[in-house]
Amino acid sequence: MPTYRAPVKDMTFILNELLKLDSFNDLPGFEEATPDLVAAVLEEGAKFCENELQPINASGDHEGCTRHDDGSVSAPKGFKAAYDTYVEGGWQGLTQSPEFGGQGLPHVVGFAFEEMMISSNMAFAMYPGLTAGAIAALSAVASDEIKQKYLPKMIAGEWTGTMNLTEPHCGTDLGMIRTKAVPQDDGSYTLSGTKIFISAGEHDLSENIIHLVLAKTPDAPDTVKGISLFVVPKFIVGEDGSVGDRNGVSCGSIEEKMGIHGNSTCVLNYDGATGWLLGEKNKGLAAMFIMMNAARLGVGLQGLGLSEVAYQNAADYARDRIQGRALTGAKNPDDKADPIIVHPDVRRMLMDARAFNEGARALALWGGLQVDLAHKAKTEEERQLADDIVSLLTPVIKGVFTDQGYANATNAQQVLGGHGYIREWGMEQFVRDARIAMIYEGTNGIQALDLVGRKLGLNGGRAVQTYFKIVGGFLKDNGDGDMAEFTQPLSKALKDLQSATMWLMQNGMKNPDHAGAAATAYMHLMGLVALGFMWAQMAKISLEALDAGTGDAEFYQNKLITGRYFMARILPESGTHLAKIEAGADMVMALAADAF
Amino acid sequence: MPTYRAPVKDMTFILNELLKLDSFNDLPGFEEATPDLVAAVLEEGAKFCENELQPINASGDHEGCTRHDDGSVSAPKGFKAAYDTYVEGGWQGLTQSPEFGGQGLPHVVGFAFEEMMISSNMAFAMYPGLTAGAIAALSAVASDEIKQKYLPKMIAGEWTGTMNLTEPHCGTDLGMIRTKAVPQDDGSYTLSGTKIFISAGEHDLSENIIHLVLAKTPDAPDTVKGISLFVVPKFIVGEDGSVGDRNGVSCGSIEEKMGIHGNSTCVLNYDGATGWLLGEKNKGLAAMFIMMNAARLGVGLQGLGLSEVAYQNAADYARDRIQGRALTGAKNPDDKADPIIVHPDVRRMLMDARAFNEGARALALWGGLQVDLAHKAKTEEERQLADDIVSLLTPVIKGVFTDQGYANATNAQQVLGGHGYIREWGMEQFVRDARIAMIYEGTNGIQALDLVGRKLGLNGGRAVQTYFKIVGGFLKDNGDGDMAEFTQPLSKALKDLQSATMWLMQNGMKNPDHAGAAATAYMHLMGLVALGFMWAQMAKISLEALDAGTGDAEFYQNKLITGRYFMARILPESGTHLAKIEAGADMVMALAADAF
Repeated sequence: MPTYRAPVKDMTFILNELLKLDSFNDLPGFEEATPDLVAAVLEEGAKFCENELQPINASGDHEGCTRHDDGSVSAPKGFKAAYDTYVEGGWQGLTQSPEFGGQGLPHVVGFAFEEMMISSNMAFAMYPGLTAGAIAALSAVASDEIKQKYLPKMIAGEWTGTMNLTEPHCGTDLGMIRTKAVPQDDGSYTLSGTKIFISAGEHDLSENIIHLVLAKTPDAPDTVKGISLFVVPKFIVGEDGSVGDRNGVSCGSIEEKMGIHGNSTCVLNYDGATGWLLGEKNKGLAAMFIMMNAARLGVGLQGLGLSEVAYQNAADYARDRIQGRALTGAKNPDDKADPIIVHPDVRRMLMDARAFNEGARALALWGGLQVDLAHKAKTEEERQLADDIVSLLTPVIKGVFTDQGYANATNAQQVLGGHGYIREWGMEQFVRDARIAMIYEGTNGIQALDLVGRKLGLNGGRAVQTYFKIVGGFLKDNGDGDMAEFTQPLSKALKDLQSATMWLMQNGMKNPDHAGAAATAYMHLMGLVALGFMWAQMAKISLEALDAGTGDAEFYQNKLITGRYFMARILPESGTHLAKIEAGADMVMALAADAF
Repeated sequence: MPTYRAPVKDMTFILNELLKLDSFNDLPGFEEATPDLVAAVLEEGAKFCENELQPINASGDHEGCTRHDDGSVSAPKGFKAAYDTYVEGGWQGLTQSPEFGGQGLPHVVGFAFEEMMISSNMAFAMYPGLTAGAIAALSAVASDEIKQKYLPKMIAGEWTGTMNLTEPHCGTDLGMIRTKAVPQDDGSYTLSGTKIFISAGEHDLSENIIHLVLAKTPDAPDTVKGISLFVVPKFIVGEDGSVGDRNGVSCGSIEEKMGIHGNSTCVLNYDGATGWLLGEKNKGLAAMFIMMNAARLGVGLQGLGLSEVAYQNAADYARDRIQGRALTGAKNPDDKADPIIVHPDVRRMLMDARAFNEGARALALWGGLQVDLAHKAKTEEERQLADDIVSLLTPVIKGVFTDQGYANATNAQQVLGGHGYIREWGMEQFVRDARIAMIYEGTNGIQALDLVGRKLGLNGGRAVQTYFKIVGGFLKDNGDGDMAEFTQPLSKALKDLQSATMWLMQNGMKNPDHAGAAATAYMHLMGLVALGFMWAQMAKISLEALDAGTGDAEFYQNKLITGRYFMARILPESGTHLAKIEAGADMVMALAADAF
């Protein structure tokens, strides 16, 4: 059975030494976030994840969720108790507004905790994850009355949330949705339609479930411009906040899926359900995107979280499994064989994952900090800068982290050989769970298109140009001495990215198919540079610490080893991405549709 | 539910136009293999696969195999009937020796049929696949008496076979096996021990199951040099060939796996089972490798077969699914949206798979032809050449095809978005089934090590040098005109491969870890060149046919489109592989084992 050890030390390194969280202690929410408090929160969170969530991960996968004849759904054994502990611990409110009962800690701290939850039990982590998305949307667009009604209970974790976009005939193209919302005299709406793939759509963890639902009013244009967002509680909430009658929304079935069996993915039937409009009519998509953007960073964390736990278990196996001899002679001469961690090809798979995990953790937390700064930084200029950067990198974090998380989980499974394919070892669950993250909240192809088709050109390319300046400036300042082995490869990769950007500017306008054909390679190329930039910064910190003789020397030495591996064995992929981009769209588009 | 259309036209193109099968019609087995006969065999095989095997693929996955309290095992519903049809059709004997009742057709034809079986139902295809491996080993090393006893029934398909290598504590390192074989006075042996991961180990398809088992005799060295190979039938076979008493081998349990649920993966307990030595004592490993090498090419076909069927279903979905608009304006203006096949990023995933599938099919069948020629070519020189080439490329076909097959199945699943994650659409089964092929018959890491550590240096590097000469010669003869867009990229990739080979020769000897750290990248680099060489040859044939105005112009034009895609968008990966190889082992080996 798999195990999990939360990487608290690596997280505090990133928060304290890379992001220097305490330098922001004059911003709201950051005053409290002293290194000691953050460490205590993460230690407490680690205990919850290691001791409560991880032990019910494999059993939850095996048992799955159960829909009863009356349409009610039970989560797997142990989930309800763990969720109660989660609520008691106040975890749902960790980074939420104190106005509604939250603790108001920075998002960057919440991101670290979220990674741990995912590593220990992704199917479980999705329940509070969807609540957080719903809270974000309500906070952004709901009226004060609705906020007062729902947010305190949701932030307490007593009620959970969902997001309802997909219908059987449409997912990506939300202009096609058919769910209807008919206005009533009392200002409410009556919703009818079918939604599919609704994660955490029905379950027994919480007292109420608050569905956020995209639907069209009768007079709305039948396009993406006619979508409105509604809040539809499972149980109608009284004026006093009490939970009343069952609303007209029910779970028609639970989908049988490849993984995340512990999360109930529901078909939800809306049959005259009462809902209330959120924000403006016909502006539902914009509101949903607020929720979606937060959710996309969370899905990126899923790629990282599964890569981390899969890596840990593969490393444990590689240390324990005695099989064969090292190529350079017996390392374990008294035994019949050496542990397989002596083999370079086994280490290759572990180091690929490790170099990604540590770089991605830094990038994710850096992204989390930008989310905070976009709202809380002192000047409009700083807020805009942070918002630009996080907008640019959100599709990269979602798309690259989940592609790579799946690849790393697959490699970790490979380390176990035949045992990796057997259920009881737990590795194949990580692969099956990781697979969904490449698909939902916008497939990774959609992320890539968002990046090249939208984010790159926004405000005349302001974000990407700023980003290039930041990375380029760092490279210029750190090109010599011990840093050269980090900055030289990164300079080459940045040059590839800049060439690709130039190529897109010159060709993507002329023919949008060039942008479309380049999109995925471009997203991965930007991901390499973004991860490489994190590694270069972490290398600098480590070199300086070793030079100064402060802190845990072994920790910094291992950082440098892993960083060098990233630069030499992962970053060179940038050249292939550039070649694919510059190959253009012609041969992608040439084959007739019916010739495939 | 998925569908499958056997790619008979592409197969006959390869057999007739690329491999020119009729030019070998003076060799045994090839006389009969006229284009008409081969086409008829493949058409008949296609019908069997499409109509009998494909319809029970998803249901077989869902139901799995059942072990009953008495240790007997039932295959999923429909498998027994389909297997009876398979036996009646004489398919098991297709390429087997006429001496024992086979039809003696070339292996290359058998390879084509095997791909179809895998695409339609991989779990089913494994039953006869393992029989074929056992037949190969018995044919190579058994005494005439044992051959007469077992081969006719096995070649008829009435009895099936298995291979028993792995034990709980050892897989790759077979020197550690503990199963004991104690000699008896009558010349037989008594076997005791536990074998795990035994595919097709127990089932109700055949009258008898012939287990080939690695074990150690009491006086044998406790290393890989002390392994012997035994034949252990489930039911003892009488002198007259009749099936007698139950032998002391039984199924202890069926493994719960990630996929291939329709195949019974058994723990087999040998408890005083009677077996007979095959070949020489203590030479079991060599005998097992005969079986293994044939099996590795078959596993390579599994990567191709699953990539093909996943591709077909993704292409169908992409044509049918109406969602969003083309980036270049509506292609389907009368409907609310366009089919998603208009999107370059969807086409990228389909073209990646298509370019691999057609190239890999050519390479696999070319490999199959070399298997035939290694035994049947007229001169010793020709036989040696064929044997050199197939030995060199066997790990490449196994490792690259299965890595890529999994990647393509994953991408095909991605094309379906959320539906790809749901069981009833069948795409996730292809991914789960494809996963095992990277692990069994020697993990892909072991394939890579076999290539760089063994095959490259064999006979002073004779095979690889010959191969470079063949590819280089073709490039030299075809560097100009319309062929340049194919041969120029291939020349670059070949140069990368030659640089990598040189680097390995210079550094791998000094420090074997350099070879180990480079192995997987080198295997993939050689795979790219081998596939590219097939594409260049197919491009030449297509250009010539179009020039001459013979045959189906659209077929050749589509070949050229797909070949150009391979050259421009897949082959450039060679540069990244070279960079990883030249990065060396130091940073792979630097981290202390307990620091992972």
